[in-house]
Amino acid sequence: MQHPFDTAIALTPITEHVFNGATTGPYANMIGPFGGATSAAILNAALQHPQAQGSPISLTVNFAGPLADGEFEIKAIPIRTNRSTQHWSFELQQDGQIAATATAVFALRRETWSAPEAMPPSDMPPAQSLTRAPTAGMPAWTQSYDMRFAPSELPSPFDGQMQAHANSRFWVRDEPTRPLDFASLASLCDCFFPRIFLRRRSFTPIGTVSLTCFFHADAALLAEQSDRHVLACARALNYRNGYFDQSAEIWSDSGQLLASSHQMVYYRE
Amino acid sequence: MQHPFDTAIALTPITEHVFNGATTGPYANMIGPFGGATSAAILNAALQHPQAQGSPISLTVNFAGPLADGEFEIKAIPIRTNRSTQHWSFELQQDGQIAATATAVFALRRETWSAPEAMPPSDMPPAQSLTRAPTAGMPAWTQSYDMRFAPSELPSPFDGQMQAHANSRFWVRDEPTRPLDFASLASLCDCFFPRIFLRRRSFTPIGTVSLTCFFHADAALLAEQSDRHVLACARALNYRNGYFDQSAEIWSDSGQLLASSHQMVYYRE
Repeated sequence: MQHPFDTAIALTPITEHVFNGATTGPYANMIGPFGGATSAAILNAALQHPQAQGSPISLTVNFAGPLADGEFEIKAIPIRTNRSTQHWSFELQQDGQIAATATAVFALRRETWSAPEAMPPSDMPPAQSLTRAPTAGMPAWTQSYDMRFAPSELPSPFDGQMQAHANSRFWVRDEPTRPLDFASLASLCDCFFPRIFLRRRSFTPIGTVSLTCFFHADAALLAEQSDRHVLACARALNYRNGYFDQSAEIWSDSGQLLASSHQMVYYRE
Repeated sequence: MQHPFDTAIALTPITEHVFNGATTGPYANMIGPFGGATSAAILNAALQHPQAQGSPISLTVNFAGPLADGEFEIKAIPIRTNRSTQHWSFELQQDGQIAATATAVFALRRETWSAPEAMPPSDMPPAQSLTRAPTAGMPAWTQSYDMRFAPSELPSPFDGQMQAHANSRFWVRDEPTRPLDFASLASLCDCFFPRIFLRRRSFTPIGTVSLTCFFHADAALLAEQSDRHVLACARALNYRNGYFDQSAEIWSDSGQLLASSHQMVYYRE
């Protein structure tokens, strides 16, 4: 049986550069699909394109309009292929309207001098010692992830008591388990609650307008991580007149940086 | 007389969506133009497009191939215009080949609840108390900026003695002075020395493959800042098999976040 995530990002080739996909129930958000599943489907169009060369280095998805539940079409064009890098351009359409644009860079990586600079938090209890956060009353996509917060760091109820910061960190993996790959890593880059909900502990309509993922992991590092929990950490820098940012890192359980991610998010008030 | 930065990003409309531009001497890099000037020229195609609505929220430029000194052509298409947001798609061509692709989100901002979350460093001496860093032997574009490092934080000579980190911070403004706007802010987002040069204190061939700028400032905040120095801070998270990242913030001299920026950079060895 196919894993629900593979169903969510499954694409059928229509022409050389155009693929058909469809939203699925397990990755539904409050309205329309979870953005992580959409950006993973877009990346998947390049990953399964016959002309793909190398593995993803960066992906930027701009969400141009609401996506409804149902079918969509992704056009994926390898705009320029060099000796070691490949540049992609994407459009996601639904009912003849562009709902998202995206670009990606792929590369053939070679072994070079490598070094970490940032380090994962050292005081996070291991995933095995924590329990899965409840998802009752939350959008369906949250049930497609097993998220484990340190006991004192569980998201608190929406009582409107402003917090001083919106930092959060938790272990997360696909539910049911699934070996990590570039598509699921792209989706994980968006698996955070909106920072403004945490900061203000209250709800306001929001929508990501631009999401960038940087892939620090190569295929070998993803294979090492397999289907175990990864550590996800996120924060915001600033909220100003309708837009805030979010930066996040996804760490392997051996402390390697797998991905970093940055987004700008609209908020109504 | 036109400011050299305005000359560097000047565009002549050719058709509805196509503009001609050219690299200039004051923004030359070691080979070809400084990437910040190129991304500012791309943004400028939207800023001066008759259909532009609102101000920039995000800009992502993917550098697909080397740009030579000389003329280039930028295609700027408003892919989708909503009530409050506008989505742009760009291609920069030279001699019939795509040298860069880009996307941007513009928005009409409204006044909402706003708050900082990150804060600028509190121990940076004011720009007026520091002297301009020397640029002898460096690419021409560095002379188009007035950069002021704290005395103990001047970039150190390339003696190959590895540093523990590649953090840096300095005051910077256009040289000669020029009131800050969205285009010059986009360019400032790329005015950092490559993190790997700082970390390893040695040279290796590098090239940015993807650069994202988030604009936290609106036009009013830029007008307040005018032509005074802004504070630029940058760091890296990780270097792995040919690619490292850089994240940066640009702060006003009153401590407001003007822009944040993220890039992935190729390095040869």
